[in-house]
Amino acid sequence: MLGMKTIRRRSLCPVSSALDVLGDRWTLLIVRDLVLRGPLTYGQFLESGERIATNILADRLVTLTEVGIVEKREAGVRSGYVYALTEKGLDLMPVLFELVLWGEKHFDITVVARELGQRHRSDADAFRAEARSRHECPS
Amino acid sequence: MLGMKTIRRRSLCPVSSALDVLGDRWTLLIVRDLVLRGPLTYGQFLESGERIATNILADRLVTLTEVGIVEKREAGVRSGYVYALTEKGLDLMPVLFELVLWGEKHFDITVVARELGQRHRSDADAFRAEARSRHECPS
Repeated sequence: MLGMKTIRRRSLCPVSSALDVLGDRWTLLIVRDLVLRGPLTYGQFLESGERIATNILADRLVTLTEVGIVEKREAGVRSGYVYALTEKGLDLMPVLFELVLWGEKHFDITVVARELGQRHRSDADAFRAEARSRHECPS
Repeated sequence: MLGMKTIRRRSLCPVSSALDVLGDRWTLLIVRDLVLRGPLTYGQFLESGERIATNILADRLVTLTEVGIVEKREAGVRSGYVYALTEKGLDLMPVLFELVLWGEKHFDITVVARELGQRHRSDADAFRAEARSRHECPS
């Protein structure tokens, strides 16, 4: 189920297995940006407020692609590639929402990414459908 | 809101802020063990299948205590200390549940920690109430 980049699974616990892939400070921020604004080009990820370093971004995009959370697609001759969420990636939306709710409750929050929580609360199903339509293969 | 151990917040996004604290491969496993079996002594954390290293465990328990997710309590003269979840820590249960659901769907899972998902699905409110009662201050 995992790709060529070897990810060691510490145990067969679902939480542990999820964290083997997602457990760092950056991976879920990349997924967040894809949920809110994706599909994205490599350069567009660099515009986010957290200022991810290019080497970390490149590394995480390789991992996310290898494990099937993200798909790299050609976006026409001139525009190069875009990164889109797969169904497995879209399945992370509830994890993100719960992190939003926890973060909103326990930290001072005053920014745009609050949008994630608001749209989840107003209509989670519509938000997911809208995100899915953006990430669908054009075909 | 954060304690003495300085945690730099990369932005005011709730997801980013949550990951500033939780974003590594071990922190949420410690919370998982507390939800399922807590309160726990230091030694009891070492019994989990993922074999956390003692230096990582010690470091994460300091952070979790400083940010108010975990509380260190005296457990009587002979038994030393136990670590319990605060309300802020119990508020992480929905995050864990969504990680369980995602992990169960996308990895081969065959173990005990599957319990987290099963109990969440059968009666999330009762599970939370039961976990809360275990972690309540004896007062």
